[in-house]
Amino acid sequence: MNEFQLINQFFKSIPALRKDVLLGIGDDAACVQIPPGMNLLVSTDTLVSGIHFLPEWDAYDIACKAVMVNVSDMAAMAAEPCWLTLALTLPNLDPQWLQAFSKGLQDSLMPYRIALIGGDTTKGPLSITLTIMGLVPEGNAVTRKGAKPGDVIWVSGELGEAALAVKWLDKEDAPESEKEQLMNKLLHPTPRIDLTHYLRSYATSAIDISDGLSADLNHICEESRVGACLDQGAIPIAPLLTKHLGKEALDLALAGGDDYELCFTVPQARCDALIDELKKNKLVCYPIGTIEEELGLRIKRVDGHCDLLAPRGYSHF
Amino acid sequence: MNEFQLINQFFKSIPALRKDVLLGIGDDAACVQIPPGMNLLVSTDTLVSGIHFLPEWDAYDIACKAVMVNVSDMAAMAAEPCWLTLALTLPNLDPQWLQAFSKGLQDSLMPYRIALIGGDTTKGPLSITLTIMGLVPEGNAVTRKGAKPGDVIWVSGELGEAALAVKWLDKEDAPESEKEQLMNKLLHPTPRIDLTHYLRSYATSAIDISDGLSADLNHICEESRVGACLDQGAIPIAPLLTKHLGKEALDLALAGGDDYELCFTVPQARCDALIDELKKNKLVCYPIGTIEEELGLRIKRVDGHCDLLAPRGYSHF
Repeated sequence: MNEFQLINQFFKSIPALRKDVLLGIGDDAACVQIPPGMNLLVSTDTLVSGIHFLPEWDAYDIACKAVMVNVSDMAAMAAEPCWLTLALTLPNLDPQWLQAFSKGLQDSLMPYRIALIGGDTTKGPLSITLTIMGLVPEGNAVTRKGAKPGDVIWVSGELGEAALAVKWLDKEDAPESEKEQLMNKLLHPTPRIDLTHYLRSYATSAIDISDGLSADLNHICEESRVGACLDQGAIPIAPLLTKHLGKEALDLALAGGDDYELCFTVPQARCDALIDELKKNKLVCYPIGTIEEELGLRIKRVDGHCDLLAPRGYSHF
Repeated sequence: MNEFQLINQFFKSIPALRKDVLLGIGDDAACVQIPPGMNLLVSTDTLVSGIHFLPEWDAYDIACKAVMVNVSDMAAMAAEPCWLTLALTLPNLDPQWLQAFSKGLQDSLMPYRIALIGGDTTKGPLSITLTIMGLVPEGNAVTRKGAKPGDVIWVSGELGEAALAVKWLDKEDAPESEKEQLMNKLLHPTPRIDLTHYLRSYATSAIDISDGLSADLNHICEESRVGACLDQGAIPIAPLLTKHLGKEALDLALAGGDDYELCFTVPQARCDALIDELKKNKLVCYPIGTIEEELGLRIKRVDGHCDLLAPRGYSHF
């Protein structure tokens, strides 16, 4: 099997799912139609073996994770994910691995009707780079730049399970069912595309939590030139963290990445309306603090005392 | 220096060059404006260290090559290259290397006014994945699919210099000035964006020669469901090949990749007009054969005898 047969068998066979794909896999470039009045959003993420995933993980899970990490970037911008290219570097050609990977791709693209439109297959150390493209009505993208003093900071779900899963990778005596729950969060995060409407309607800024809440909120603060004060008691720490880590649970919830929940800011005066809408649609988000004029991150302890909070999260170098 | 400082210093500093970039490097996704009436073209290429380039090459050259390979995909579709994302995987953080790489990026993007709009920086074995996006008026993309029996096959320049450069990488007794000329072709190929107008006006199909003429022409034939007969005497073999390889020069010109010239097909009846237009603009392209109904590749020898031609080119696996 050569590179071209590989592409035909494992990638060209994935259904395109969108009528706006004029030319998909198999030419020098893919060609798509853009409806008028829309902005194009583009994001690229690389997953390197041994860093973002372990080589022994099921190729199905690796594919799902790679897609979801990219879809999450569209969720964070309040964009509809549309098209994807895949650059796959493989140490060797293992049809079984490719079959599982291709199935993982297909299963994770399907629910969002994202079309795989192109890519490149090369030989080398295992690594996956996806570029996702999405659409948003002109001027409706939600960026990291719009947070204003007084805005309420929200997160879209409980934090820390994926980070605990990473901590537990080598832990052999962990309870099996809990370990499974955590690994599922790590391998199959759910990008919060379901919040796109609310972000467009209410949010002044947004980011997805990939590096850790404190590091990612710090990005919002830096881009918006504001500061933030979190309310310690309001941080939605995942119950398994509290159960197993005690006092350290908060640290992991603040610094642990990979959950792919969203952090976003909403003007105080709009929060009641947001709460009503979320409730009606049976969605739960958590207000966790306030944007302030004073730069930097702070955390208000349960006793009312305020501490500086160093932004901590994953850094490659 | 962490990942974010790295991005700020070496990549965010590259000027954007386009007014349609609403949001560049530094958010969850980039955001661009698409003018109405245009199709979006997307292509992804990975360059792996040790395969597409040698790790000891100057980072400036590696960046240039990576960009040009991607721009060439836009040239092959008759598209205007517009935006680029860069996924860079680095074994370590070497500011000198990054400075040279960033300069190479900037210098190769500038002439085409391509904007670097986003990317990802990760730690791992050196590899570069670029995704390039371009525009073409609706329905004007030139694909691999439109070649018809009777069409004349053209190439845009002499073939084989880049392949000879690869052959000579370890050859210590090669004449310095010739080696330099060849390395320049390998490291700094010129994507044929200058032919975009002619492709849109005349070509029924096109491809860039990255894997080798016979392999790439074969892609056109397979996608267009036709065959091709090349005229041996008409193949523009680069003079250095004939000088150093004698009879083997033809083989290398047919099978050697990396030249990034274009191969395209033009209806017989339109060729005179194309020749006139090219001449007026001091451009030289070479008619090298004919598209035929009979599938497969053939080559007509100088004595009139016809041989089957096996498509040969680079394959990763």
